[in-house]
Amino acid sequence: MVNVGIIGATGYAGAQLVYLLSHHPAVSIMYLASHSYVGKRFSDIYPSMKGLCDLTLEEENLEEASYKCSVLFLALPHGMASKKVNADILSRCVIIDLGADYRLSDASTYESWYKTEHFSKELLSSSVYGLCELYREKIATSNLIANPGCYTTCSILTLAPLVGEHLLDTSSIIIDAASGVTGAGRSEKIDSLFCECNESFKAYGVTNHRHTPEIEQELSHLVQETIVLQFTPHLVPMNRGILATCYANLKDGVGEEDIESAYHKWYASEAFIRLLGSKLPETRFVKGTNTCDIAWKVDKRTNRVIAFGAIDNLIKGAAGQAVQNMNIRFNLGETTGLPANVESPL
Amino acid sequence: MVNVGIIGATGYAGAQLVYLLSHHPAVSIMYLASHSYVGKRFSDIYPSMKGLCDLTLEEENLEEASYKCSVLFLALPHGMASKKVNADILSRCVIIDLGADYRLSDASTYESWYKTEHFSKELLSSSVYGLCELYREKIATSNLIANPGCYTTCSILTLAPLVGEHLLDTSSIIIDAASGVTGAGRSEKIDSLFCECNESFKAYGVTNHRHTPEIEQELSHLVQETIVLQFTPHLVPMNRGILATCYANLKDGVGEEDIESAYHKWYASEAFIRLLGSKLPETRFVKGTNTCDIAWKVDKRTNRVIAFGAIDNLIKGAAGQAVQNMNIRFNLGETTGLPANVESPL
Amino acid sequence: MVNVGIIGATGYAGAQLVYLLSHHPAVSIMYLASHSYVGKRFSDIYPSMKGLCDLTLEEENLEEASYKCSVLFLALPHGMASKKVNADILSRCVIIDLGADYRLSDASTYESWYKTEHFSKELLSSSVYGLCELYREKIATSNLIANPGCYTTCSILTLAPLVGEHLLDTSSIIIDAASGVTGAGRSEKIDSLFCECNESFKAYGVTNHRHTPEIEQELSHLVQETIVLQFTPHLVPMNRGILATCYANLKDGVGEEDIESAYHKWYASEAFIRLLGSKLPETRFVKGTNTCDIAWKVDKRTNRVIAFGAIDNLIKGAAGQAVQNMNIRFNLGETTGLPANVESPL
Amino acid sequence: MVNVGIIGATGYAGAQLVYLLSHHPAVSIMYLASHSYVGKRFSDIYPSMKGLCDLTLEEENLEEASYKCSVLFLALPHGMASKKVNADILSRCVIIDLGADYRLSDASTYESWYKTEHFSKELLSSSVYGLCELYREKIATSNLIANPGCYTTCSILTLAPLVGEHLLDTSSIIIDAASGVTGAGRSEKIDSLFCECNESFKAYGVTNHRHTPEIEQELSHLVQETIVLQFTPHLVPMNRGILATCYANLKDGVGEEDIESAYHKWYASEAFIRLLGSKLPETRFVKGTNTCDIAWKVDKRTNRVIAFGAIDNLIKGAAGQAVQNMNIRFNLGETTGLPANVESPL
Repeated sequence: MVNVGIIGATGYAGAQLVYLLSHHPAVSIMYLASHSYVGKRFSDIYPSMKGLCDLTLEEENLEEASYKCSVLFLALPHGMASKKVNADILSRCVIIDLGADYRLSDASTYESWYKTEHFSKELLSSSVYGLCELYREKIATSNLIANPGCYTTCSILTLAPLVGEHLLDTSSIIIDAASGVTGAGRSEKIDSLFCECNESFKAYGVTNHRHTPEIEQELSHLVQETIVLQFTPHLVPMNRGILATCYANLKDGVGEEDIESAYHKWYASEAFIRLLGSKLPETRFVKGTNTCDIAWKVDKRTNRVIAFGAIDNLIKGAAGQAVQNMNIRFNLGETTGLPANVESPL
Repeated sequence: MVNVGIIGATGYAGAQLVYLLSHHPAVSIMYLASHSYVGKRFSDIYPSMKGLCDLTLEEENLEEASYKCSVLFLALPHGMASKKVNADILSRCVIIDLGADYRLSDASTYESWYKTEHFSKELLSSSVYGLCELYREKIATSNLIANPGCYTTCSILTLAPLVGEHLLDTSSIIIDAASGVTGAGRSEKIDSLFCECNESFKAYGVTNHRHTPEIEQELSHLVQETIVLQFTPHLVPMNRGILATCYANLKDGVGEEDIESAYHKWYASEAFIRLLGSKLPETRFVKGTNTCDIAWKVDKRTNRVIAFGAIDNLIKGAAGQAVQNMNIRFNLGETTGLPANVESPL
Repeated sequence: MVNVGIIGATGYAGAQLVYLLSHHPAVSIMYLASHSYVGKRFSDIYPSMKGLCDLTLEEENLEEASYKCSVLFLALPHGMASKKVNADILSRCVIIDLGADYRLSDASTYESWYKTEHFSKELLSSSVYGLCELYREKIATSNLIANPGCYTTCSILTLAPLVGEHLLDTSSIIIDAASGVTGAGRSEKIDSLFCECNESFKAYGVTNHRHTPEIEQELSHLVQETIVLQFTPHLVPMNRGILATCYANLKDGVGEEDIESAYHKWYASEAFIRLLGSKLPETRFVKGTNTCDIAWKVDKRTNRVIAFGAIDNLIKGAAGQAVQNMNIRFNLGETTGLPANVESPL
Repeated sequence: MVNVGIIGATGYAGAQLVYLLSHHPAVSIMYLASHSYVGKRFSDIYPSMKGLCDLTLEEENLEEASYKCSVLFLALPHGMASKKVNADILSRCVIIDLGADYRLSDASTYESWYKTEHFSKELLSSSVYGLCELYREKIATSNLIANPGCYTTCSILTLAPLVGEHLLDTSSIIIDAASGVTGAGRSEKIDSLFCECNESFKAYGVTNHRHTPEIEQELSHLVQETIVLQFTPHLVPMNRGILATCYANLKDGVGEEDIESAYHKWYASEAFIRLLGSKLPETRFVKGTNTCDIAWKVDKRTNRVIAFGAIDNLIKGAAGQAVQNMNIRFNLGETTGLPANVESPL
């Protein structure tokens, strides 16, 4: 059994992680920490977990926890992990960070998009970007795994084969995405109140959403050129789910069969990617799963491809992928404890 | 023009009031106060009100406001109005209090249900319970009008004719009600977050909801006997609306025609009550209106009547009724500025 | 492996059943029939089931299916099962009927509430009411199992211990319940359109909902007296979930501890019942599970108990209980293939 | 008073029209027709309209209606108006067609996108595209007004000033839009059921949505060149509202102030357009109104403008604009009977 701990266990991503790890056959949860609920039991906060996880929430103490656990998951606001993680901790414990602090390899990019200092730049070179389908081998040996953002997971998975196979005019990439409200987290904000979200639709973070440089970094990396792209998120009145609608001009001579080949070449044997072809995805069909549904259409009128990715933002976009990373790192079987299909057909 | 002020203008009830008063032809808004947003303009908080109400939100100062305004609406947490209102203020200004402090004529009942001291018990005898359909005449001359609660408005209007005409075994009254989430107000609480309310249904305040003694007081008053009843509220994942499903055993010999007669006798000429007979109400059909839809069924198998009331909790259940009270008090025409029908048939 | 078939596989209850049976370790699905989609694959209708169930939907032919399958689940509109089932079929095959035709032991009660003839009255005496927690032993040996309705399961489970232990004035029982929209099924009706249900709350079936006699039959049976009660369902704008709020006057001398004892006596060792005491249930905490959450409060002011039951209408209220019945009947382990806890804590 | 009739009165757009016209001070409704509800009263279908519109729904007979009414609104499935309208009818009656039949000036474009014959091509040259802000003068004198589609209204209004002022690389235009479910109409389709739409987000009509040629026609017309663009609609689980997120590369040297100038030049005096600058719109702030909210951001990194338009699909996107067209045509005051602001600030 792998001993695990979760810091930031009562936010939505943290709680989803507790749920998945509670059901994971090769794992023991040894430590749960929470900023707001120290001393309470996890199941006091999430009553549906009674009997499944009744651990008491502790003070956040990474140092101490790193002695008890082989792996620590961090689900913290940005800027906090970079203060707490250090080489000593990493020498005895794997860190899987669900936050943004170790995702961008260039600290100045981080500091300019996040408007905050990075407190452990020296660790960036040893961190691996934990997008499992792309970095499986590096993940297997790294002690600092930067779990990707929700929008970024969905966007990169959808675009990587097309970019990687040089099918797109990369200067034309536009990602128009939409997320359910769990994406905003469990903090007490007016904007997240039921009556402020319900029966409405809006864009936010236009031109400056922090997932932008993350997507650019990874797609650029695939082709060793600098890609600058457009990313626009929207808020949907539903609990879970992200749909990314991705547009790009096709390079001359690229046709539908090239698109299809690229996807099959890259993903045919992936357990958590379903290629739907031209059948359009709906977020409800990936709800509660670690699956990314991908579909595409070529528009001959405009010479564009429109590619779609759909994930559950809390699973493949956060907690599920974190578990997948752990599974890879500890050789537990990549799909262990992770649902690929929705809990019901509705 | 009547000069009006609103204290607590940025909560949901307060904002609804600002909206209604902004469109009221006989009113000038002179003063808006808010605990949280002093110095901001109302339309900064509610952007859809730009051009309609751009007043700057002031510190809450009842004393000062009472010199500028002929009527002040208070939309404050319970316990605050009873500290701020006094005879001096009432000597020059009408107070319409949307909170609970002046609704219960017996201060000890208030103190036992609200677990707080009442700070101006001496004013209780001069206050009138502002349920327009029942107390029109007293309202017309009172300077302290206690606007009823949302559940109570709906429940009392639904049951009053049946109780008042002595058709019910009053010991058997059960009110099972449900409200949209605006009923919880605009405060930053975990329980009011989108993802905590959406896709769920629950009861709350069972056996101890504070609207209980208010309903009991008013129904008791109608028959000059003490009525003790059951009231259970539920939360519905929607923005607005209250449905009260009211059960009671019929007295011997009471039939369907007696029920119908009672409703028509009491409400036939009311502008804001629609009698639907056995056609069941839906909250969407009163959304955005000051109307209370009432329907009923007699069950011969059980000898019970099941009576239904539906209102918009923010209009007839709060701001709309407050305006109706003002209209009565200042002789502006009871229906002025108040919608009786939904803004669209959907 | 038990060979199973489902007739009416593409409605919401049928599809939920296909999902559960696809994941059941001791079952092979041999036959799926659908009135509307003959010749299509199940996963064409429910794309999230691709790879999990790609069987082709066949014509509804009970006779033929009864040769291939050891158990047939019927998810049909009322009145159809009573035409199709006969003694010959039952001689070789277990029928678990999710419809109403074999639930009421008295055919005339059926005919008067359902306004239709019963076409196989002779089978009623051999049918067992498939409420697992109450009739486990009879279910184990019966070939005709009438799976209870959704509201009825929730209502009976909530009230049975209180009625069975003679704690209530049974003439005072009122059940006020609310359901998500899957309860209305997957048929193309205006009333089930998104825009007709969303942002509204209403009662329906007042005084004449067909689950009433079913609840009465079962509660009456517990005490060998005729109970007549009030049942009022409501529609909630959410997909899944039922909450039953049950009211009854307590018999003289009955107190909180008697209520608690009764629940523990009846349910302490039940795998799918969680006793929450005075902590109120929310439907989201049983979503996707076969669990019934039960809570209660005694109101000393009114001498009433208010008891709450919460289930997922498609699982414990339909498909899950059907599987539980099969598990009992075929000795597969009562909880096999049935989730007791929600898929995520949200 | 202008005598009006509505054919297709019980669909969502038709019903919204009945609502608006019932409250219009210069109009008498003389005739309502419905395919599905002949002989019923309008208020039987939409009970909230009781007392406001109790007219009986008649057979659809354009010929007959054209004698009683000065203006007929058609809210019919595409292909039907082109069969029913003729020069004789137009000689005595103004037709405002909410459908698609007279929107595209080129019949072959219509036939290729709609996959159906056009039955009155000879009328196309006399029809005017009823986008009020662009074609006010022609509308004032035309007897055949083609009311624009919902997505098209929003998209064209958002992009027209930028295209018209030659600020964009028109080959780069991408419109990514999302609509509430009323956009799908009131027909009994599985896809429009509550449980099929709720808690999900999806794209549809990708590369082939019929509003595409309409947007292209109008934007092309502004600059007398052929514009081919990308349009992708999505479905949001809410009743009403459209948000169009529009992307385009800026021409060399175009900056933020050019964008702003263009919008102010075109729309500064429009009653139903609100220019929000960089404050992003939310559909809830235009719900129930005839207003189009427009905002924009320039992204210097990508040299793109992202422009947003938000409308209520049933008002400015259908019935409201139809009334606005009537107001223009009959010189009733363009804003008469049309709300510019939401019914409440929530």
